[in-house]
Amino acid sequence: MPPTDGTAWGRALIGGRALEVRRDGDAVVTETGERHVLAAVQLLPPVVPANFYAAGLNYRAHIDWANSYHGTSYAVPAQADIGSRAPSALIGSGTDIVIPADSPGPVEYEGELVAVIGRRAKDLSEDTALSCVAGYTLGNDVSERGWQRSDRTLWRAKNADTFKPMGPFVVPGLDPMAQTIEVRINGRVVSRYETRGMIFSLAHFLARISRYVTLHPGDVVWLGCDGATLPPLAPGDRVEVVNAAIGVLANRVVRAP
Amino acid sequence: MPPTDGTAWGRALIGGRALEVRRDGDAVVTETGERHVLAAVQLLPPVVPANFYAAGLNYRAHIDWANSYHGTSYAVPAQADIGSRAPSALIGSGTDIVIPADSPGPVEYEGELVAVIGRRAKDLSEDTALSCVAGYTLGNDVSERGWQRSDRTLWRAKNADTFKPMGPFVVPGLDPMAQTIEVRINGRVVSRYETRGMIFSLAHFLARISRYVTLHPGDVVWLGCDGATLPPLAPGDRVEVVNAAIGVLANRVVRAP
Repeated sequence: MPPTDGTAWGRALIGGRALEVRRDGDAVVTETGERHVLAAVQLLPPVVPANFYAAGLNYRAHIDWANSYHGTSYAVPAQADIGSRAPSALIGSGTDIVIPADSPGPVEYEGELVAVIGRRAKDLSEDTALSCVAGYTLGNDVSERGWQRSDRTLWRAKNADTFKPMGPFVVPGLDPMAQTIEVRINGRVVSRYETRGMIFSLAHFLARISRYVTLHPGDVVWLGCDGATLPPLAPGDRVEVVNAAIGVLANRVVRAP
Repeated sequence: MPPTDGTAWGRALIGGRALEVRRDGDAVVTETGERHVLAAVQLLPPVVPANFYAAGLNYRAHIDWANSYHGTSYAVPAQADIGSRAPSALIGSGTDIVIPADSPGPVEYEGELVAVIGRRAKDLSEDTALSCVAGYTLGNDVSERGWQRSDRTLWRAKNADTFKPMGPFVVPGLDPMAQTIEVRINGRVVSRYETRGMIFSLAHFLARISRYVTLHPGDVVWLGCDGATLPPLAPGDRVEVVNAAIGVLANRVVRAP
């Protein structure tokens, strides 16, 4: 993970190799100073986390909506118990989300703010917890609602290959509680919410997690989404998770043959 | 991950560095041919998995016992839905299991057979699924039953630091459905079961997982345990998970101050 001096960074596939890059306007720059036009490189997930945390239910309007629309019976969590996702499901911005051939559907987006851990940390206090964060990126917690209902765990509902787009870059220095997250499908805004609506703040999660579990550089914490996640994703759609400071995480949706 | 030519392999901390080693009787041998007395080296978890799968409920007598003893209401799973654990919780044989200071308890062992994936695999058929396995090791799925009851997820109940001892070595060529797994506390056998009692076989799990999720070299699949997991672990205990072919995964239990 590159040191953070205020510039956005990530990874790109260049000459067949996964390289760490920094963003410089419409270009990416490798460690050796090589420049490549951003539009011409394939972005990868900016980090490959050893531990992939996800808050899951962390906004009231999302819980209320899921219970009324999907018939779930989620309670508002009484304490910050973190969930997890599988690194094998990660893709970068620009790579296709592939809906498995036998998916009963619906498959829905969840646009989320993501914190990337920058240093080893244990027993953080809530006051200083954010000091372990290297920066922020965006995630799309793609969810197969049929499997979410039918299965005992989230293993394929949320972790099928390609179901975890993350990127485009990691941006340091943001206030995680003062961001607007927007989702667009085919250019139309379908969701928009403020991260100040989190039930448990990022600082609270990091303090609580690190009381029992050591955080490691490259670990990520996905912070959940607010509101409805409609309409369902359909083959051919282009889904974008958007934040003014971080940029656009864009992925096309296809269906496996 | 070293190639598997039939010898047991793992990792050890030698001269402050994590090195891949092979077992040769009472010694470990590094890639450069250096030999070290086994009893004098600190073993590490034999692999650091990118994706850490755990079957969870995979034996009937364990489900029946948990429901009657712990008052849970687990159903026998109708389909093989895999769970997960956190790599951050892994320790090797010989490292202490640390019970957090505020653990309400009880903390229990779960001695398990573990499959280590050796090659990238997708869409395996059940007939040939085991061809992607590099070998087998042992795991202790240490579980804080109080938190398992109180929390929305297993994040600290099963993934607190040091709660996932794995090792001592990876042994290729075993039949995963014909192993005896034993657990000893302070030398006394407290659990003993046959892996042929699995509800879903390893081959079935691998075929089902790989239909939706690509398996990667170093990924591990913990296969669950049978029967009761008593008595609870107490500070000072030495807990061992034992298999005739793989050896002994031994860890001392301490309580954080």
